[in-house]
Amino acid sequence: MDPIIWLWLALAGGVLALALAVFYGRQVAEASPGNERMRELMGAIREGAMTFIKREYTAVAVFVVILAILILIFLDWGRPWGAVAYVFGAALSALAGFIGMRTATAANARTAEAAREGGVTKALPLAFRGGAVMGFTVAGLGLLGLALGYLFFEEILGDDNSFQIITAIGLGGSSIALFSRVGGGIYTKAADIGADLVGKVEAGIPEDDPRNPAVIADNVGDNVGDVAGMGADLFESYVGSLIAPIAFAAFAFSGFDFQDEAFFYPLMIATLGMGGSIIGSFFVKPGEGSLAAALHKGTWVAMSITIVGVAIFTPILFGSDVDGVDNAWGLVLAVVVGLVIGWLIGQISEWFTSDHFRIVKEVARQAQTGPATVALSGISEGMRSAAFSVVVAALGMAGAYWGGDLAFDHELAGIYGIAIAAIGVLSTLGITVSVDAYGPIADNAGGIAEMAHLPPEVREATDALDSLGNTTAAVAKGFAIASAAITALALFFTFRQAVVDAGGELPVLDILDIHVTVGLFIGAMFPFLFAALTIQAVGRAANRMIEEVRRQFREIPGLLQGEKDVRPDSARAVDISTAAALREMMIPGALAVALPLVVGFISVRALGGVLAGALLTGFLLAIFMANAGGAWDNAKKFIESGAFGGKGSDSHKAAVVGDTIGDPFKDTSGPAMNIVIKVMTIVSLIFASAFV
Amino acid sequence: MDPIIWLWLALAGGVLALALAVFYGRQVAEASPGNERMRELMGAIREGAMTFIKREYTAVAVFVVILAILILIFLDWGRPWGAVAYVFGAALSALAGFIGMRTATAANARTAEAAREGGVTKALPLAFRGGAVMGFTVAGLGLLGLALGYLFFEEILGDDNSFQIITAIGLGGSSIALFSRVGGGIYTKAADIGADLVGKVEAGIPEDDPRNPAVIADNVGDNVGDVAGMGADLFESYVGSLIAPIAFAAFAFSGFDFQDEAFFYPLMIATLGMGGSIIGSFFVKPGEGSLAAALHKGTWVAMSITIVGVAIFTPILFGSDVDGVDNAWGLVLAVVVGLVIGWLIGQISEWFTSDHFRIVKEVARQAQTGPATVALSGISEGMRSAAFSVVVAALGMAGAYWGGDLAFDHELAGIYGIAIAAIGVLSTLGITVSVDAYGPIADNAGGIAEMAHLPPEVREATDALDSLGNTTAAVAKGFAIASAAITALALFFTFRQAVVDAGGELPVLDILDIHVTVGLFIGAMFPFLFAALTIQAVGRAANRMIEEVRRQFREIPGLLQGEKDVRPDSARAVDISTAAALREMMIPGALAVALPLVVGFISVRALGGVLAGALLTGFLLAIFMANAGGAWDNAKKFIESGAFGGKGSDSHKAAVVGDTIGDPFKDTSGPAMNIVIKVMTIVSLIFASAFV
Repeated sequence: MDPIIWLWLALAGGVLALALAVFYGRQVAEASPGNERMRELMGAIREGAMTFIKREYTAVAVFVVILAILILIFLDWGRPWGAVAYVFGAALSALAGFIGMRTATAANARTAEAAREGGVTKALPLAFRGGAVMGFTVAGLGLLGLALGYLFFEEILGDDNSFQIITAIGLGGSSIALFSRVGGGIYTKAADIGADLVGKVEAGIPEDDPRNPAVIADNVGDNVGDVAGMGADLFESYVGSLIAPIAFAAFAFSGFDFQDEAFFYPLMIATLGMGGSIIGSFFVKPGEGSLAAALHKGTWVAMSITIVGVAIFTPILFGSDVDGVDNAWGLVLAVVVGLVIGWLIGQISEWFTSDHFRIVKEVARQAQTGPATVALSGISEGMRSAAFSVVVAALGMAGAYWGGDLAFDHELAGIYGIAIAAIGVLSTLGITVSVDAYGPIADNAGGIAEMAHLPPEVREATDALDSLGNTTAAVAKGFAIASAAITALALFFTFRQAVVDAGGELPVLDILDIHVTVGLFIGAMFPFLFAALTIQAVGRAANRMIEEVRRQFREIPGLLQGEKDVRPDSARAVDISTAAALREMMIPGALAVALPLVVGFISVRALGGVLAGALLTGFLLAIFMANAGGAWDNAKKFIESGAFGGKGSDSHKAAVVGDTIGDPFKDTSGPAMNIVIKVMTIVSLIFASAFV
Repeated sequence: MDPIIWLWLALAGGVLALALAVFYGRQVAEASPGNERMRELMGAIREGAMTFIKREYTAVAVFVVILAILILIFLDWGRPWGAVAYVFGAALSALAGFIGMRTATAANARTAEAAREGGVTKALPLAFRGGAVMGFTVAGLGLLGLALGYLFFEEILGDDNSFQIITAIGLGGSSIALFSRVGGGIYTKAADIGADLVGKVEAGIPEDDPRNPAVIADNVGDNVGDVAGMGADLFESYVGSLIAPIAFAAFAFSGFDFQDEAFFYPLMIATLGMGGSIIGSFFVKPGEGSLAAALHKGTWVAMSITIVGVAIFTPILFGSDVDGVDNAWGLVLAVVVGLVIGWLIGQISEWFTSDHFRIVKEVARQAQTGPATVALSGISEGMRSAAFSVVVAALGMAGAYWGGDLAFDHELAGIYGIAIAAIGVLSTLGITVSVDAYGPIADNAGGIAEMAHLPPEVREATDALDSLGNTTAAVAKGFAIASAAITALALFFTFRQAVVDAGGELPVLDILDIHVTVGLFIGAMFPFLFAALTIQAVGRAANRMIEEVRRQFREIPGLLQGEKDVRPDSARAVDISTAAALREMMIPGALAVALPLVVGFISVRALGGVLAGALLTGFLLAIFMANAGGAWDNAKKFIESGAFGGKGSDSHKAAVVGDTIGDPFKDTSGPAMNIVIKVMTIVSLIFASAFV
């Protein structure tokens, strides 16, 4: 068949996904947002979130303009299309985060109300639909945006550099994602730590107590960090994974008969995955089984449909009339390997972070001998989980390479296989994000239930949803990290081809070439520096919040005593978090983009080393931090459920320390690391010709 | 001049250093060991330490025999010399640790007695002399052993593979060092944590209280971990750094006129450094200035003599009659770069871990908001220090490469320069170790003073010595880590040459070759796994100790009440630490040796990736863990000195948590990492021909 049909199908798939998002969005909007107090709280959270995101996008816009100008200046394509594509990608990414957050901040009170009306059975579908708006917006905009870019730059304009231009869409997404993750991560943890340390620990009032001025900011944080930040993040992962094989095929396969097929194959996988996700989303409803079963069912349906579709259409696309194709089933293997890597790394995350397994219980048990042993236990388990995940990823990459190698008669075919595996991981993004994004909605719903003094069984229902959300989020994080590492590797290979294509001497990147060696060291240290900077940023931002909450407790008469009609100045706390997050995100974010640019203009070989080094340690730190944080969080929850002395015991206090250490690990530094390794590679790829 | 003269001078230097060790040892032996109780305590510590080291060496002997047999089987040199050299190196390394520890366990009570008699002024020289026995034994055995090996295998036997055989001496040292560091590190921290958690925290008795059954074990731990472990470690660093350029010259420079000079140049630098160290050691005496000034003076004198000597003799050795030498000053540059890297990384360590600087004070300040913020602060500062140190090392390597490149007309000359820089770091090892090893002696002296109920001013004097020892130890650790990374890199380059020499295809190690890529990931994850395993080993061993101390407090009547003539069963506590450490050291230690062997027999290119990956993350984790641990330790001491509420305050409790997290970081996992990255490379280098 003519492979271009998959371009049209991809456009259709993108539109369909967006239509589904609108459909789910309507369903959310139609539900009742509850009583006046709940609507008021929802309004405050939404207003804070919108204010933050507007100010964040304004600040990032400056950065986007600077990079767009650099693209205009240094990439002598003689046409503005690179910069246009870059801004287009940035706009889509921002839009994905914005829409997801708007829906999430509308779904929170409605989920609480649904829980009040009909318990978990009624609340789960609503929270899931809120998450699904995000999921299908992200995936839909990603697929549609990329297909449109392809259509416009390649098919209509027919530009010589169309594939580098399309890559710029990915860089646009990455830019927004980087700052959203870092800024949102700082915001949410500053508010969280500030609310907890002064409220729970110093003043001794419960979590989400309406007297606490930082509680609204904490709930805003869930939305700007876990929803908008994650939305932009996954948008860029998805687009990045689709771009990697397309760009690689452009450089490596030119002149080969199967190049066209290799261009459209990523769109085919994504389209099939989108179809699977759309169908799968209708299977998420609480039936006889557990809540987890309902969510898992949707994911399994989506995956099965995708695999079957890929198995059917891959041999058709790479039909017998295409020269140079040895065995198209090798590509099916690569897709399946990708799905398996994602699933396995997700399983490892679950194994290390869910209190259904031995490890979290062991971390909790260490709380009996105090905070130091909890901390050491979480750190060592996090490191162990990183080691296991990396082994899985490394072996998986070898498998995907083998699959690609089987497929084509081309010496670089294996790398195409690796790039295809990354799409395999993310093909069912629509449903994966839906499942992930529902967590913060349930979390917020619980906060609103508490603040609006709803009956305790409502809180219990939302807590059940929230706890499940923690586990599904860990699995989704596994997917995101696995795809990030594989995509970064594929982009890295593409970078080399781009340098070769531009006439640079980079046929090999010899580890033992001194440029490369020095680059490896510099690159390897960067994720450590980035982690240090973001942890410290959270610390500083949290300190400002702590001071503000203390000040309000001290200066607003009757607040702490809970007198009627005395309300804290929540807006001020929101404002402090916003200002601190925006200030603190700038340096680490800008460094990640500047480092490859600076090194690249000095030595392209050194830049190769930098990218490899950063990929290695960034991948390890991302998993280490995510899983250590998750293990501490759930160890604390495990103790709260009554183990080792339960709530209020010394063990619990020790576990809370672990959880607080884990906060910036799992919600700020760790997730940002995914984007850092990709943003560095994609910047290098785009500027490759300028470096040479 | 005939370069072989430096072989004879090296032999003489080694003998002279050993003579100096005997001289200092006599001086220690002549001092009074104090009253009966002090002698009794000294005896108990010495007996515990000797028991441990004998059982440790017995256990490691099995491992040494296995590896010796593997060398015999796989290296088809047809002669047993490789295995002989390996056992020789292992024996020397064990001997160095043994002698150092014997002296340290004799110097502790004598230092306490000297402090009683004459305060700091009398105690410092004695503690330093105790350390110097260790310092000059390690350096003397290293230089003498290597020179003897050279003489025997190359000059007398004239074996074809003499340089690979000499390399086996290094592997022998590394084997002992690896297990000594891991086993000693587990021992000392299990005893330390056990003594502190039950004694100080649960029972509320002071540190080093004679009622605590784990106190003797804790003091034993200082000797087996900080003295014997470090001695074996630095022996292997020193020998490794000397072997790297010799082996590299053997493979890369064969047929070149300057090969002979390149062989003997490392011995020349080491000999000059030894001379400088010997002279410098006589400058260590408390004069008008501070204690630190006295120690620093010795180091500066040694360094100055070394640099001047190198500047004079390098141009003479590489005289105008040697073909292919462009500019011998390039090598002087490499030596100086090495010294500067070591000094700078030491300075960074001091900056991050001494309470004279801002960072430790900031970590201490974070204790005011509880243990979580202390933990985060230490982690982020540790990561930052690793990033800075790696940048210094990377730029230094580039400088040393440039120096080597200037020196010879040979495309691989730059790598020789890197190897020479590693010797530069370690050339003044004699005095560096002396300064480092005096710390645990002072620490032990304080313990004995406490347990023997000496007047408080004695403890104050030993505390002053101990506190200074913490800082000098941090600087020495910086040296050790810097040298480890550079030596490992030089050995890694040599490994490639060895593979090429053996007829293997490894002209380049392309990062983007899938074998290498997968290897990089596997290698990069190994230090994370190793850190996790060793942290957990300390945790398990400490738990056993905690249970034993609790049992004794419970079951021995009158012990906790301090009744006269009721003594704890210290021997049993020592036995528990010993057994636990020996059991726990086996798996992580054996893994570090097995991983390169297994990978190497599968794919040499993958092994190249493994070595590079492990070097990158091992280096980063080693510095991260050492400096985070040091910062926490001194933040706690800073608070104990009265800041932020002082001893017993909530801030202090939070800081103690940080210190405990740091214990396995800085004394078990971190220091072992240095050896891991070298042991992996040196195993690969020796088995290179077997892999091909």
